[in-house]
Amino acid sequence: MSGCPFFQRKQLEANKQQMKEDEEDVAQSGINKASKGGIVYGDYLQLDKIMSSQLLQSTLKGDTIHDEHLFIVTHQAYELWFKQILWELDSVREIFISGHVRDERNMLKVNTRIHRIVMIFRLLGDQFAVLETMTALDFFDFREYLAPASGFQSLQFRLLENKIGVPDSQRVPYNRRHYRDSFRSEETEQLLHSEKEPSLLKLVEKWLERTPGLEQDGFDFWGKLQTNIFEGLRRERETIEQRPDSEMKEEMGADLNKQKEIFVSLFDENRHKHLQSIGQRRLSYKALQGALMIYFYREEPRFQVPFQLLTSLMDIDTLMTKWRYNHVCMVHRMIGSKAGTGGSSGYHYLRSTVSDRYKVFVDLFNLATFLVPRAWVPKLNPNEHAFLYIAECCDSSYCSSDDSD
Amino acid sequence: MSGCPFFQRKQLEANKQQMKEDEEDVAQSGINKASKGGIVYGDYLQLDKIMSSQLLQSTLKGDTIHDEHLFIVTHQAYELWFKQILWELDSVREIFISGHVRDERNMLKVNTRIHRIVMIFRLLGDQFAVLETMTALDFFDFREYLAPASGFQSLQFRLLENKIGVPDSQRVPYNRRHYRDSFRSEETEQLLHSEKEPSLLKLVEKWLERTPGLEQDGFDFWGKLQTNIFEGLRRERETIEQRPDSEMKEEMGADLNKQKEIFVSLFDENRHKHLQSIGQRRLSYKALQGALMIYFYREEPRFQVPFQLLTSLMDIDTLMTKWRYNHVCMVHRMIGSKAGTGGSSGYHYLRSTVSDRYKVFVDLFNLATFLVPRAWVPKLNPNEHAFLYIAECCDSSYCSSDDSD
Amino acid sequence: MSGCPFFQRKQLEANKQQMKEDEEDVAQSGINKASKGGIVYGDYLQLDKIMSSQLLQSTLKGDTIHDEHLFIVTHQAYELWFKQILWELDSVREIFISGHVRDERNMLKVNTRIHRIVMIFRLLGDQFAVLETMTALDFFDFREYLAPASGFQSLQFRLLENKIGVPDSQRVPYNRRHYRDSFRSEETEQLLHSEKEPSLLKLVEKWLERTPGLEQDGFDFWGKLQTNIFEGLRRERETIEQRPDSEMKEEMGADLNKQKEIFVSLFDENRHKHLQSIGQRRLSYKALQGALMIYFYREEPRFQVPFQLLTSLMDIDTLMTKWRYNHVCMVHRMIGSKAGTGGSSGYHYLRSTVSDRYKVFVDLFNLATFLVPRAWVPKLNPNEHAFLYIAECCDSSYCSSDDSD
Amino acid sequence: MSGCPFFQRKQLEANKQQMKEDEEDVAQSGINKASKGGIVYGDYLQLDKIMSSQLLQSTLKGDTIHDEHLFIVTHQAYELWFKQILWELDSVREIFISGHVRDERNMLKVNTRIHRIVMIFRLLGDQFAVLETMTALDFFDFREYLAPASGFQSLQFRLLENKIGVPDSQRVPYNRRHYRDSFRSEETEQLLHSEKEPSLLKLVEKWLERTPGLEQDGFDFWGKLQTNIFEGLRRERETIEQRPDSEMKEEMGADLNKQKEIFVSLFDENRHKHLQSIGQRRLSYKALQGALMIYFYREEPRFQVPFQLLTSLMDIDTLMTKWRYNHVCMVHRMIGSKAGTGGSSGYHYLRSTVSDRYKVFVDLFNLATFLVPRAWVPKLNPNEHAFLYIAECCDSSYCSSDDSD
Repeated sequence: MSGCPFFQRKQLEANKQQMKEDEEDVAQSGINKASKGGIVYGDYLQLDKIMSSQLLQSTLKGDTIHDEHLFIVTHQAYELWFKQILWELDSVREIFISGHVRDERNMLKVNTRIHRIVMIFRLLGDQFAVLETMTALDFFDFREYLAPASGFQSLQFRLLENKIGVPDSQRVPYNRRHYRDSFRSEETEQLLHSEKEPSLLKLVEKWLERTPGLEQDGFDFWGKLQTNIFEGLRRERETIEQRPDSEMKEEMGADLNKQKEIFVSLFDENRHKHLQSIGQRRLSYKALQGALMIYFYREEPRFQVPFQLLTSLMDIDTLMTKWRYNHVCMVHRMIGSKAGTGGSSGYHYLRSTVSDRYKVFVDLFNLATFLVPRAWVPKLNPNEHAFLYIAECCDSSYCSSDDSD
Repeated sequence: MSGCPFFQRKQLEANKQQMKEDEEDVAQSGINKASKGGIVYGDYLQLDKIMSSQLLQSTLKGDTIHDEHLFIVTHQAYELWFKQILWELDSVREIFISGHVRDERNMLKVNTRIHRIVMIFRLLGDQFAVLETMTALDFFDFREYLAPASGFQSLQFRLLENKIGVPDSQRVPYNRRHYRDSFRSEETEQLLHSEKEPSLLKLVEKWLERTPGLEQDGFDFWGKLQTNIFEGLRRERETIEQRPDSEMKEEMGADLNKQKEIFVSLFDENRHKHLQSIGQRRLSYKALQGALMIYFYREEPRFQVPFQLLTSLMDIDTLMTKWRYNHVCMVHRMIGSKAGTGGSSGYHYLRSTVSDRYKVFVDLFNLATFLVPRAWVPKLNPNEHAFLYIAECCDSSYCSSDDSD
Repeated sequence: MSGCPFFQRKQLEANKQQMKEDEEDVAQSGINKASKGGIVYGDYLQLDKIMSSQLLQSTLKGDTIHDEHLFIVTHQAYELWFKQILWELDSVREIFISGHVRDERNMLKVNTRIHRIVMIFRLLGDQFAVLETMTALDFFDFREYLAPASGFQSLQFRLLENKIGVPDSQRVPYNRRHYRDSFRSEETEQLLHSEKEPSLLKLVEKWLERTPGLEQDGFDFWGKLQTNIFEGLRRERETIEQRPDSEMKEEMGADLNKQKEIFVSLFDENRHKHLQSIGQRRLSYKALQGALMIYFYREEPRFQVPFQLLTSLMDIDTLMTKWRYNHVCMVHRMIGSKAGTGGSSGYHYLRSTVSDRYKVFVDLFNLATFLVPRAWVPKLNPNEHAFLYIAECCDSSYCSSDDSD
Repeated sequence: MSGCPFFQRKQLEANKQQMKEDEEDVAQSGINKASKGGIVYGDYLQLDKIMSSQLLQSTLKGDTIHDEHLFIVTHQAYELWFKQILWELDSVREIFISGHVRDERNMLKVNTRIHRIVMIFRLLGDQFAVLETMTALDFFDFREYLAPASGFQSLQFRLLENKIGVPDSQRVPYNRRHYRDSFRSEETEQLLHSEKEPSLLKLVEKWLERTPGLEQDGFDFWGKLQTNIFEGLRRERETIEQRPDSEMKEEMGADLNKQKEIFVSLFDENRHKHLQSIGQRRLSYKALQGALMIYFYREEPRFQVPFQLLTSLMDIDTLMTKWRYNHVCMVHRMIGSKAGTGGSSGYHYLRSTVSDRYKVFVDLFNLATFLVPRAWVPKLNPNEHAFLYIAECCDSSYCSSDDSD
């Protein structure tokens, strides 16, 4: 960036006029050391490679179409950011995989990086506004030169989906072909590998299953919750029954029955397994319990950061799905609803991916169905009040090398 | 982008299921032709080069710092977009230079591209939010590895400033050195060249000077305006003088005097030249007249698109200055107000660039000082009413090759 | 806004230190006249009413829930902006209805106001991020107090839909009830009235039908275009047939057939009427021709602003549909996918409104299907080259009172 | 919002079709209960008051100017959001004042609400884009009607500044008058009261002073840090001295001296008090220590949420200052740099408020100056490793009523 004084020769140097300047703004002085060896901006960023990567197909065909440059740069910017998301995602997954997350100190890192992914997706949503300055007519002038290239062939986007946890079984097929068929063999291997590695979803699931307080021989959250809920419903029933007969009373009774059914279903593990088998639930039964527990006790110091994490995971889901929808809208504008690549409607394919099938953390959203009045939430024993932090792997050095990067 | 069906083998193909699908949504069918030769997505975007350009200095030093990746990717994204801005800017300048802008048909192109620059700058403002997910502490971990690289060495940003029209004389020196001294010799030449080429400011100036209606032997906008304004002021004086004596009356009289002084100054060409010489005005006297004329007659068909253009030029100025300010804020957060590169405070340097000195189209903003009641604006003769479009260089073919790209 | 020096006693006053300050920045001086009579900020904005309108139901129930305040303020902000959109929309419709749009000078106004609606919708999209700082759990604490109020009862949003042109026939019913049934009788009348008034869609349609160049006894765009397209297709056929037999050749032939079918359908007025009758097309056949004409000749001075208008209309459609989708996402997060008001799933209802059924200007998007190579577009005769601006109703005064507000 | 199914009669009801719908999407059914008593949307939001508060001065003068409506609505939207910010700010201050923050469970609440303020300020920045669709010329048409109202008279904005902690002594005077002089007597009292109440800055200061680990007879962070830093500097000195003589060596020595001076100053309490007295530092010496401690140990579970809080406080500062700068830019565009209210330049006044004087948490930014290598940070004893959460005021009931803030 212009005049960015970020890059420091040394922290020492960075501060050297501190004393002088502290009280008054002295005139800028000193010698710019840019020429004294060390790396320069353009080399550091490898701008020679980046800036030589915009080769217009229309130019190759001898007919440069101005807007193709925008088309290329926008897609490159998307891919750059996808790379950054993968970088964050891999580091977070690594913290989970290595078990470092059991050292609660790593939760800040996990949270910050997941939040960064959120911020990037937010940016990617805004980025559409730039590409949309190109009209359908501008695009028409060069789109035939691009065939058969297709965004469907974005390796990074597929890796991203796999690593977050979009399961193969939930994907909408496009032109009756498997998504992997659009890729070359070495890419296909990367994709296969990413399907087999533990996804963020799976890692979060394992972590949720370990939520302290779930132990049946301990706090037994699930057991206590069940007791409280059905006790609460029973009392509601009594209150209703004491009312004089009326349409309202009848209705309330019916409502209560429905409500009860919902909770009966919540505590029915077989039902959960059934819903899992058809893809309507993605987390294990135990993990679902952990998530609900974090919801209910989110204000406990132990659970504050975990609760933020669950919120950020929903943010990612929401933003990915909004990204998909933004994409649909742009395609509609660029090529209409009927056109598409290779014989079928890309518009309709893309539209079908804006669906809960692609929401990886859909269970977290649906937990909103199972909220109960605060009074029904099992009380914590003030003696053992908090689920304290555990620092399982603390060694004698704070600056230990357990930075997972 | 994922599943982006943008790239078409042919428009023909693109539409081929049109008939079938028109009334109902048929199941997707057809054969994906991705494998049948032609270019693929990754090759088209040269992703091998883009994606291999993130080499962390901390990794080279054997101590990978996670956040350096973000730092690199963010800066690369900035540079990619700077390239796109330069692409648009050069094409617009070329339309002006070649005189194509006299064919009014090119105004849509000019306007669209300038507006695109606006949209890109808007995005670049949002992009800071991503980098700001890195804290000062994260940055501290690797910033010493980067010395002496500095954003001050961004060639593209300097080219951009020059091509828009930031004059050398208005630049704030940094560490007492000329901005060009931070660059290698071949880059220095590019910069020198860009200083000598006609900037957008200069080209817009020439174009404004040709505004139809300025001709003294024709509509004579300037002469008529002067007459009307002073006649208007004279009548205001009369109205005031008919009031009974009061503090209010005195005040109104004093106000009117001030107001008159302003307009006297507006019609004083020598004064304009003086202000130009000290950098407070940038446009020629004639161009200023043209701009004011476009302001006043903006609803005339002939002037609607020119008026939009003037508005977009102010948008660019505003957004560039906001970008600078965003930059200042980020630097404050990352390294505090006292630190800086090579011995002086980058923070204070950057802060000083958030100034009207760097507003290229400052005259357009300041025209707001010279607005007058609609009744004072010279009337157009309904017979010759409009400044009709002229198509100076129309040839027999609509699809002529005058596309400036 | 803080220290906003917007409000001027008089323009005269506004400029009074102009002369002094022109060359140097004098210290601020003068007397603040705020106390000297005239209106003050809070009264001007009627802040007493605005700021006393946040009455929490939870407070009424004796149990103030902090986040209900956010819920109220956010919805009030939405409604404020809806009012502004209606203000712009009504003024634009009035310009069309009164025929003022035939004076091309009013096109700037139309365009600017439609663009303003675009900018407001963009803001409304961003506004969700604020409400999303409330979690499902925070919401659960007060949502029972709100029954049976529902956003479904937003009068302004329904007026907005009607005035833009969402037809009653395309609405998705909610709980088997007509949308008007949620409103009180005086509101119902407003709604009925808005359904009967000419919508923006209808007004734009009439305007498009008047596009100069459509006249069969004049330029006859449609006739010429048809000739050119079928001539073009014929030549493509010849080119293909000269190729040696191959799978490719066969495919290209098949593609061409499909392509031809599309264009046959384009020129088939009966087909258009059929599609209109089932809601897949909304514009009249003539208006569609006008729109396509503006697309193809968008660079003609006469058509530049109309082309921008068509683009902005698509922006509105896109942003409204994104707003709907943002809404869906928020509801999913707040109450899960299964819950809803009064017995059915609000989530699923809302989801079904994110559909092309609610895209009023869907025809403009779908025109992308009918693009052709530039060479096929009928040439303009250079003698009569441009479709010049007509100033039908120009009177002798530029400052006439034809401001449509 | 349209069809917003937020408002629930009861949670029970909300879920009643859960069972049916769980596996398949049943057709929507049920009876809309909107008519069955209870509150409706428009009444809940008091839309009659909100929607009747747009009275144009130009209309009163018999000359409705279209854009004045936008001007009013935009400012009302700003004021609505200011009210929400005050609501959040007051609740957070109350938690601090009442000592509830000692119960760590309240930190989530504090953090969430401060973050919400961040999100609102982000929106307010975007909101300028809407007002900027009005040009200087549109504004000129009605601005004289508004005198002498001025945004300078926004009570809520001043309250906000005071409650966050902008000190009276740091305010830039406008037209030589005190900011309070622009207000009526009852408003002046509110302002005086807000100056006397503990500001967010003061409350955060007290909280930082209690940071566990600062106790001199305990972990003694400050003592240990001082020892480590000077030991570290001593070793650096040795390393440098072992190098052969060279220009580089000399430079490094000089750098080290500067660096040492900085740290000498950090540990000099008198110097801190001096800087405080001239407004360059705002936090007490002890609070500064606490903040630095949280920075260095931010990954400790105990400090993760506090660290986020410090980051959000900087966000607020940054966004407020960006808001001020956006405001400046808009004013420049609307009235030029020379004009202003009541005789002096509003532009220059506003510009002078975009300054570190108005950055309340400037100390947090400047801590970036005092960062040190991780190895210099005092190690924690693994036995007493963590600064565990304390739940000072836990009672037997989790669902205690201290929630309603």
